[in-house]
Amino acid sequence: MKRLQIFGMLNKDMDQIEKELYRSVQGDDELLTETSLHLLKAGGKRLRPVFVLMGGKFGTYDLEKLKRVAVPLELIHSASLVHDDVIDDAELRRGEQTVKAKWDDKIAMYTGDYIYAKALVMTTELKNPRIHEILSRAMVEMSIGEMEQIRDFFNSGQSVRHYLRRIRRKTALLIAISCQLGALAADAEPGVARLLYNYGYNVGMAFQIRDDLLDLSGTEKQIGKPPGSDMRQGNITLPVIYSLEDESLRLPLLEELDAIRKGQRGVGRAIDLILSGEGITRAEDLASRYIEKALTALEALPNNKTKRSLRDIAFFVTGRAY
Amino acid sequence: MKRLQIFGMLNKDMDQIEKELYRSVQGDDELLTETSLHLLKAGGKRLRPVFVLMGGKFGTYDLEKLKRVAVPLELIHSASLVHDDVIDDAELRRGEQTVKAKWDDKIAMYTGDYIYAKALVMTTELKNPRIHEILSRAMVEMSIGEMEQIRDFFNSGQSVRHYLRRIRRKTALLIAISCQLGALAADAEPGVARLLYNYGYNVGMAFQIRDDLLDLSGTEKQIGKPPGSDMRQGNITLPVIYSLEDESLRLPLLEELDAIRKGQRGVGRAIDLILSGEGITRAEDLASRYIEKALTALEALPNNKTKRSLRDIAFFVTGRAY
Repeated sequence: MKRLQIFGMLNKDMDQIEKELYRSVQGDDELLTETSLHLLKAGGKRLRPVFVLMGGKFGTYDLEKLKRVAVPLELIHSASLVHDDVIDDAELRRGEQTVKAKWDDKIAMYTGDYIYAKALVMTTELKNPRIHEILSRAMVEMSIGEMEQIRDFFNSGQSVRHYLRRIRRKTALLIAISCQLGALAADAEPGVARLLYNYGYNVGMAFQIRDDLLDLSGTEKQIGKPPGSDMRQGNITLPVIYSLEDESLRLPLLEELDAIRKGQRGVGRAIDLILSGEGITRAEDLASRYIEKALTALEALPNNKTKRSLRDIAFFVTGRAY
Repeated sequence: MKRLQIFGMLNKDMDQIEKELYRSVQGDDELLTETSLHLLKAGGKRLRPVFVLMGGKFGTYDLEKLKRVAVPLELIHSASLVHDDVIDDAELRRGEQTVKAKWDDKIAMYTGDYIYAKALVMTTELKNPRIHEILSRAMVEMSIGEMEQIRDFFNSGQSVRHYLRRIRRKTALLIAISCQLGALAADAEPGVARLLYNYGYNVGMAFQIRDDLLDLSGTEKQIGKPPGSDMRQGNITLPVIYSLEDESLRLPLLEELDAIRKGQRGVGRAIDLILSGEGITRAEDLASRYIEKALTALEALPNNKTKRSLRDIAFFVTGRAY
């Protein structure tokens, strides 16, 4: 998976962030360095650091300061992924073996703990207690979201609202604060930071809905792991919830989900059922509505190059392809 | 396991800390509240909060401020235990079922993540960036220590130095900073905070050696879990390392360790071998030397009631019985 394409100057700064990311987990312990670098070097879009730098453009842009927010945010995101892969028993992520697959669950757990702690150490170099507070609260929310996800495994009775609350915690919040903290670290005006938070929140919601859609309608090459992985592990996503609302799909889909849960069947037929109905389209529509809200938040921001890039990213998320 | 007995006034303050501990993990999510309270209510000596309050006695004692260090330190300690129990596959801790046994590994992992994050949120209420830095660095060291422990499982070639480095990270550091942060939160003099750190570090080393000793020579009733648990899971502790240095014990003990690793044999004969030699006594001697160093650090502190209590705790650790 490649880094998000962005305009010239930020690309150079993103190279620095990339180097700093690698540097941040090196040197303490051979095995932790190896597992952490394996995780980080598998890549990713680096959405969170990109948003931090863009948020910084609305204030006094200082890469040194912004780094100390951008790197921890990507580290926190990465640590959460390595723990998720343990929970989800995932073998592949971004086309590479997961830490839990290449090593084991235990090593993956401490790799996550280590990366979380490293993220926090780096934020202490910024003398702004508000930033710590926002970051640590986001970590609380993320862990609640993860727990909700475990509890909701194979819960076919969950509502759309339930799903949205979960992805808010799991994904949208961290993207929202990436935009916000970039602005705060650059001493941008509070109103600007709030609008950026709103933008990030809505883009994050759309992004996760899209991610969940791709898991059902993408190819293994596109998504770096076998399609239907979410359903296989019991993660009931928006298109599934919508499909269960469809009278003609409900019973056969419930039957498939039950057989998947018992390990009796693969996800092929369940995916076919979902693709045959309106679930995918309805989920795409909801993602688009979040993107519209993100664009509305942007409107009130001062016109500049960064604002246009943020608009591009919002569109990119809607029509996302890897 | 009961809370450490301390003098009157602190006991009342410790009751407040206990309440705050429970309060700190409540309300976000039903399951996380339940798992976290299960963990915290199983008790413990609350050594870290006691040391924070005692450290605070060397400056301007303010319970409200000290709480915001004492509670996070106990939370960080508890979170590390819940993750350790996953790694160690432990069924019992302090005579109660572990979170991983009562629920499962996944729930235990997110319970740990949640409690870590809650600890960090609480420290943000203290506007002293130095405290965050010390705490987050300690979390990095702890995760390195845990990883070293995994890597050293059944490594019968490890040295005493190796073992000491591991328990320094795993245990002594957090106890050292408990003493130090209590002093810092109470604006005690830097020299006093340093001495308290030294005291805590040495008591922590002695404490962990003692804990490892009890795992071999204690009864299930004393230690709240079956004796020999460390060896069963491959954790080679100081008395084992010393016993392996004994020519007459080395080969039979290696054979036992190998059979334990392969799951072919229990730990009974290995324990008998260790008890027959000098390993226990030598480990006790090293613990006593750490206690002496702790007492030396105390000597330079101003004479007061708290100093006498710290001395009592040091002795209590030496002759520790639950």
